[in-house]
Amino acid sequence: MFDHFPKRLQQQIQFMLEMDKLKKVLRRSPLIDNSRRENSAEHSWHLAMMALIFAEYAKGDVDINRVIRMLLLHDIVEIDAGDVFLYDKKATSMKSEREQLAAKRIYDLLPKEIGEELRALWEEFEACETADAKFACAIDRLQPLFNNYLTEGGTWVEFKVSAEDALSKIQFMHEGSDEIAMIAESLIQSAVDKGYLSASSTSSK
Amino acid sequence: MFDHFPKRLQQQIQFMLEMDKLKKVLRRSPLIDNSRRENSAEHSWHLAMMALIFAEYAKGDVDINRVIRMLLLHDIVEIDAGDVFLYDKKATSMKSEREQLAAKRIYDLLPKEIGEELRALWEEFEACETADAKFACAIDRLQPLFNNYLTEGGTWVEFKVSAEDALSKIQFMHEGSDEIAMIAESLIQSAVDKGYLSASSTSSK
Repeated sequence: MFDHFPKRLQQQIQFMLEMDKLKKVLRRSPLIDNSRRENSAEHSWHLAMMALIFAEYAKGDVDINRVIRMLLLHDIVEIDAGDVFLYDKKATSMKSEREQLAAKRIYDLLPKEIGEELRALWEEFEACETADAKFACAIDRLQPLFNNYLTEGGTWVEFKVSAEDALSKIQFMHEGSDEIAMIAESLIQSAVDKGYLSASSTSSK
Repeated sequence: MFDHFPKRLQQQIQFMLEMDKLKKVLRRSPLIDNSRRENSAEHSWHLAMMALIFAEYAKGDVDINRVIRMLLLHDIVEIDAGDVFLYDKKATSMKSEREQLAAKRIYDLLPKEIGEELRALWEEFEACETADAKFACAIDRLQPLFNNYLTEGGTWVEFKVSAEDALSKIQFMHEGSDEIAMIAESLIQSAVDKGYLSASSTSSK
């Protein structure tokens, strides 16, 4: 029905429709009310809102508008590649290759220069080396800690995650924001106190 | 557990957690695959992505970063006030009062100046008078047209919406973007051809 539209506009519409599929990608994390698992679209929205709210705590020279864009699109490769659970070592080892294939297919739906720009933002997020990406990555890592903590352990309990493993996943956060890292550390400490995280490592032994 | 944190940071955390509830607000519109109704959090994410993709079509002097922020937060009052269906005249008449109460409670969770800034952005969106808001409103109105069109009529069929009513809801779009309005008009015309919208008005007679 859009055959009479300029090709560029058709490409943009096609990409926009493709995005609907991210609402069907389920993450491991539960919603805070534990009623169901979170999907990657609403997760991405939540992170963008967090960037807006916590912007003042970003370390270094951060452009919060770029951070918001990164967070909006950081998971769209999951439409093809699926969500990879943080503690799933096997899936993590295959993650990069699958996501690169997904990125090619999905970003290539767009007019060339838009696709390249957005893909570059995603690559920057994945590399987690710039100040913008480090803050975005810290936000991305913080949010599921709350979901676990407020559901009596969530995926920590489900997958028997140790405090040592959980702490190892948040060390990098200080590079993005000391305050965000501090919140994460408090959550993990309190989770240990409540028995949601085991005190010693099991999965790495 | 955050009692030892500065009050400001506690307020920001509280607001962030409150946001999780938007994932539980169901809209009338189905997902494109018709598997379930869309929620307002994933809807807001989709609109922000659309603003990013369709930015070049915004009419006037538009700051797309402000548009994205508006779209991210445009529905958070629904946490208290619920989603109001576009064609529900009775609910629409009560909408403003309920949403003002919701805005007060929710934005007041934040540190004062952040809450005021975000609430002002929401008020600007609601008034739909600035160039930024007009583009944001046009995006917001376009997306559910696709959801209806691609699900053999969706809420148009469910609530027996006429072409006349549907067209009356999109006239304003040209103020935000001629291209977005053109897409909407094409969808509605094709929906009439396919019988998803009735040719004559029923609800207004």
